[in-house]
Amino acid sequence: MQKYTIAVVGAMGAVGREMLKTLEQRNFPVKKIKPLDIPSNAGKKITFQEEPIAVEAAVSGAFKDVDIALFSAGADASKVLAPTAVTEGAVVIDNSSAWRMDENVPLVIPEVNPEDLSWHKGLIANPNCSTIQMLVALKPLHDRYNIKRIVVSTYQAVSGTGQKAIVELNQQVQDYVTGQPIKSNVYPYQIAFNALPHIDVFLENGYSKEEMKMVFETKKIMDKNISVSATTVRIPVFRSHSESINIETEKPFKIDEVVTTLNEAPGIIVVDNLTAANYPLAIDAEGKDEVFVGRIRRDFSIDNGLNLWVVADNLRKGAALNAIQIAETLVQKALI
Amino acid sequence: MQKYTIAVVGAMGAVGREMLKTLEQRNFPVKKIKPLDIPSNAGKKITFQEEPIAVEAAVSGAFKDVDIALFSAGADASKVLAPTAVTEGAVVIDNSSAWRMDENVPLVIPEVNPEDLSWHKGLIANPNCSTIQMLVALKPLHDRYNIKRIVVSTYQAVSGTGQKAIVELNQQVQDYVTGQPIKSNVYPYQIAFNALPHIDVFLENGYSKEEMKMVFETKKIMDKNISVSATTVRIPVFRSHSESINIETEKPFKIDEVVTTLNEAPGIIVVDNLTAANYPLAIDAEGKDEVFVGRIRRDFSIDNGLNLWVVADNLRKGAALNAIQIAETLVQKALI
Repeated sequence: MQKYTIAVVGAMGAVGREMLKTLEQRNFPVKKIKPLDIPSNAGKKITFQEEPIAVEAAVSGAFKDVDIALFSAGADASKVLAPTAVTEGAVVIDNSSAWRMDENVPLVIPEVNPEDLSWHKGLIANPNCSTIQMLVALKPLHDRYNIKRIVVSTYQAVSGTGQKAIVELNQQVQDYVTGQPIKSNVYPYQIAFNALPHIDVFLENGYSKEEMKMVFETKKIMDKNISVSATTVRIPVFRSHSESINIETEKPFKIDEVVTTLNEAPGIIVVDNLTAANYPLAIDAEGKDEVFVGRIRRDFSIDNGLNLWVVADNLRKGAALNAIQIAETLVQKALI
Repeated sequence: MQKYTIAVVGAMGAVGREMLKTLEQRNFPVKKIKPLDIPSNAGKKITFQEEPIAVEAAVSGAFKDVDIALFSAGADASKVLAPTAVTEGAVVIDNSSAWRMDENVPLVIPEVNPEDLSWHKGLIANPNCSTIQMLVALKPLHDRYNIKRIVVSTYQAVSGTGQKAIVELNQQVQDYVTGQPIKSNVYPYQIAFNALPHIDVFLENGYSKEEMKMVFETKKIMDKNISVSATTVRIPVFRSHSESINIETEKPFKIDEVVTTLNEAPGIIVVDNLTAANYPLAIDAEGKDEVFVGRIRRDFSIDNGLNLWVVADNLRKGAALNAIQIAETLVQKALI
């Protein structure tokens, strides 16, 4: 079996760490792991398959022996360094927003549009976390009923912002419990015991960049004819995003058919037994690979309306796992 | 000026305490306050206008000298005791769900349908917290543009469940910080660092009772032709509910007109300056009387679509304040 040299760019970050863990857990055929990060982190050690490995500086020249470079170091770093890595011979799978809307770059969720990997030119973009879990849940319904419109409100975990936001929420609850004043650095306001309708920067049109990512990425990945209206909100959860999704389909459906369709689709676990108070929960999804779907019910306010509650681990399926599934699909399809 | 003897039923609860505080703050013409609660709390003291007052048992006979009885003791208590209070001569303003859909009982938000107070028969229902703040925000828009459909997802504080849920969230974060196991009694699952798409009980149709309250109460209070689809979610916030509201109107609108309309409406404060990261927040709404509206933006996925982020203190405008505003309106209109 062929093995691959894998660079993880941003290896010290929340997603980078999860990428290393996911590579281990899924037994990806790794010849050599190359953890890269900002120069000031060079020399620090990460652990892979119980071996300590020194982090190296993510700079040009670092990708000459790399087969696959998994990038999760932010959009600015990706803008500069991803093309360098491609030039040096690596296939880049980039978790940032830098290349997602570039028409020369496939934007891929393996359960939704694996066929788009065939036209990659060395650079493949990993979609936004909130888009990935929504489209894994909606793809089988779109195939069967043709989704026309999506109205989504999100309940997003702080780990989506990165390791520093996990530390901030932790510190804020600690300061709350010990009666210290609560300080905010990562977010503009206290996130503990609060809900911030503000993810990424705001744009001219009144939407946040996170909201528009859900609009544009859905069109690029699944169907350009689907209209999306999104409200993205940060809540005091460490891990796993939850989403309240309302869809309108062209074709009529029966609820039991919808449940069966979701149950049979890849990457989905239906959790929906109301008499047992069973529904997807952020704390249950943590560390899991699947997208959990529940609260499946007809929206009686229109014809062909449906409501869903969709939860997934934002660092796993929303980031690290999806990137590694892209790598696995490249290997399977001999596209690398 | 005429003064009134006011009973507060459920005086030891989260909303009961807020009712007492709100009566003080708004200088309601109180002749005598009569705190009532379950018999086992009789003899305990509450403070009103700096005087300690003994709680009495909420039993039949307790309302003979009462002009207005503010009930916040749950639906079961209201079912039994509210008709008794009316028979004994009190006008009852009931915060529970017991009488809201009774066609002989007006369901009133003073900013929305004060005219319905004119036909009261001694019993007036206070709407559900999540409905109140939504309709205060939407009423001026409905008057001007005719709302056809509402899709709402809520982010609700634990205080909506009552004092015991405030204690539970407090205990859970304390146990988290001190490394103790987290226990859940009030909610079926941990609420700290989680999001529960489950408020009140689930019904046959797949919706929770809280969700259907928003559907039915909107029709009764504002307009029976409005269709509502709701997803109600409990999040780890102590106080103030947030709501992501998507509406479709019959008539077209301009966004600056919408902002002006909201700004001029009673009980609303617009907080919407994205360049300054200004939007309504749960922690800012705490203790405030107004409904805060922000993230006002066109929904580009349909004609005449609008998104709003609406926040209010669920114990104030969502419960205690609205009940006392009903009492004030009864006094003003000589309906008592």
